[in-house]
Amino acid sequence: MTHPWAPVPGNSDFPVQNLPYGVFSQPGKDPRVGVAIGDAVLDLSQLDLPYRADFATASLNPFMSRGHQAWRAVRARLTELLTDPIHRPSVQPHLIPRSDITLHLPFQVADYADFYASEHHATNLGKIFRPGQPSLPPNWKHLPIGYHGRAGTVVKSGTPVVRPKGQYMVGDASAPAFGPSRRLDIEAEIGFVVGTPSAQGTSVPATAFADHVFGVVLVNDWSARDIQAWEYTPLGPFLGKSFATSVSPWVVPLDALSAARVHPHQDPAPLPYLSKGQRWGLDITMEIRLNGHLVSTPPFGSVYWTADQQLAHMTSNGASLRTGDLYASGTVSGPRRDQRGSLIELTWNGAEPLELPDGSSRSYLMDGDTVTISASARCADGTRLGFGETTGTIGPADV
Amino acid sequence: MTHPWAPVPGNSDFPVQNLPYGVFSQPGKDPRVGVAIGDAVLDLSQLDLPYRADFATASLNPFMSRGHQAWRAVRARLTELLTDPIHRPSVQPHLIPRSDITLHLPFQVADYADFYASEHHATNLGKIFRPGQPSLPPNWKHLPIGYHGRAGTVVKSGTPVVRPKGQYMVGDASAPAFGPSRRLDIEAEIGFVVGTPSAQGTSVPATAFADHVFGVVLVNDWSARDIQAWEYTPLGPFLGKSFATSVSPWVVPLDALSAARVHPHQDPAPLPYLSKGQRWGLDITMEIRLNGHLVSTPPFGSVYWTADQQLAHMTSNGASLRTGDLYASGTVSGPRRDQRGSLIELTWNGAEPLELPDGSSRSYLMDGDTVTISASARCADGTRLGFGETTGTIGPADV
Repeated sequence: MTHPWAPVPGNSDFPVQNLPYGVFSQPGKDPRVGVAIGDAVLDLSQLDLPYRADFATASLNPFMSRGHQAWRAVRARLTELLTDPIHRPSVQPHLIPRSDITLHLPFQVADYADFYASEHHATNLGKIFRPGQPSLPPNWKHLPIGYHGRAGTVVKSGTPVVRPKGQYMVGDASAPAFGPSRRLDIEAEIGFVVGTPSAQGTSVPATAFADHVFGVVLVNDWSARDIQAWEYTPLGPFLGKSFATSVSPWVVPLDALSAARVHPHQDPAPLPYLSKGQRWGLDITMEIRLNGHLVSTPPFGSVYWTADQQLAHMTSNGASLRTGDLYASGTVSGPRRDQRGSLIELTWNGAEPLELPDGSSRSYLMDGDTVTISASARCADGTRLGFGETTGTIGPADV
Repeated sequence: MTHPWAPVPGNSDFPVQNLPYGVFSQPGKDPRVGVAIGDAVLDLSQLDLPYRADFATASLNPFMSRGHQAWRAVRARLTELLTDPIHRPSVQPHLIPRSDITLHLPFQVADYADFYASEHHATNLGKIFRPGQPSLPPNWKHLPIGYHGRAGTVVKSGTPVVRPKGQYMVGDASAPAFGPSRRLDIEAEIGFVVGTPSAQGTSVPATAFADHVFGVVLVNDWSARDIQAWEYTPLGPFLGKSFATSVSPWVVPLDALSAARVHPHQDPAPLPYLSKGQRWGLDITMEIRLNGHLVSTPPFGSVYWTADQQLAHMTSNGASLRTGDLYASGTVSGPRRDQRGSLIELTWNGAEPLELPDGSSRSYLMDGDTVTISASARCADGTRLGFGETTGTIGPADV
């Protein structure tokens, strides 16, 4: 990899090996597609690129629908444009400081599915929600458990999160109460964005993962634990999750992450449709900050089920993929307490509150709290690829 | 209601009091919006109507997004055009025999949610899936339990249904098998289609139901019971449902159904956010035919939770509505065996197979089987409003 002529600060999330895609706008101009490089965004709608018309839109979906060969061709051309100094005169005018732009939700979400792929997370939640029973359900090591979430409430990073209201049980009451959630939580996750669609009635094998998945985002699947605990039997989470899910504005190309692959150990061996392919675990370390204070560093590489297995499972019944489908890992938790990806785990459902530097403590989120999730992938050659961040601040419940 | 000048056969599903909306095409012409009347479809794109441009599209979404006043205005104008003979010369040329058209999926599905609102159904499934435990979970009478399904696999009536593959447990095996579902089932449901969107962070009260919900369709939520039984703990149904959901091509306007309202009894009294409004139960009798043979007549009026309560519940946490959101009742089952809305109930999970007139019997669906769901609403004045049908034929699993 040659050095870019474009300036990239030493510890930037966005070296030339990354080139994540986003949708941005400047005052008075329509949103369009760009890639992040250093502290700038490169306006793709102004460059001599294949599929150029796809970049003059407010969504990555048209370009994502083109398929893997198109993604590779554009990525190769962008790398050339940013590293060969001969292109500097024509390209540099289209580098815009990121401080001058507004970022948008980068893609139109088709369906949103959420998995439950971290063994440490699933074990912790089993102990908290189902004490006295085995912490992992009997199916857990045979299939990547997942469910569908609400696509219409996936929002861009920075969108305020209104505290949800709902039904929950209080103490030993015989009937539920209704009111603002008292146990508002986060879930730090990695999300995978589908580009290439598939036909209904056919399955996508794990080996075709990189042909269908365009890129990777950070996800905060905000969760109201009290609402969830009361509603989720027997059909799963619904209103405890559906009020908001925040995603990062930059979609890191899967092709940038192939050098960060890891291969988690699985025992028992999964069924054949889940054991083919390259096993796309990824060496990504996440960081969760509560009001600026680092509270956890979940290691995505420790997650049991990998994204290619999830894709194969999700389509094993013939369910089709659409451009813009988003599926997330589920909460990422490592073995250590300071690697847990949700407050319910970090505080053990409030039994062990977090102490913050301002002297306050938290079991769950208070109005005004800001949660920011960031992450870095570590490639085999030592290159660090950042994901930017997804952030959100809690506002009071609607009255 | 004056008599229409347009011909309507005596027992038609589509008298002038109905006027359901659909999307249709003729050979060589683009899809557009029409209403069914008798044996014809009226091409709305050719009439002098408000919002006329909305009808020259392949989806009801643009018109549905206009809101309740627009829906009422167009419905009033259509009634006038079809009943006042003065309009006959200008309107009659745009009545097309329904035998000459192709019907399409009438709207773009945004999010799809499915409820579990029939007490008889929930009780039956509790007895079958969770024997020895209380058949209704403790939350059931306090909230309308629901979950999100896969919007991308909602298909129009007539789309073949490929038998899904998946993981399931066979007998006392210690590990799951993977293969074509052996317990492929139907779920006969009524679906509600959202027109008017709502803002994230706000709730839609039950009293605003008719301002947001445009109309009603028939839904067959095809279900693989073996896949579902193994996967659904603890996050609910996923691949057991996500392979296909069939909807009828005609969206019956909610305004046509206000004379068919019923008010189911609920005990205990629900929380205040679920007790306001008109309680939109509907006196609809459904018919399920397996290979043409009537096997069940589920009474939708017996369903416990009503659609306005479901809307209020679904948005009580601030989740937004989008034009094209579809939410379904869950399987409709009445108290009698011949009123059950799924094969798992009709055959008690295979213990009591259905005998068909050709001498064969069924526990679950075989390849080649065709299931057709139709329904009629009975209005207070005796008018019968039909829903047309949703049908599908099972094809062999993809190999």
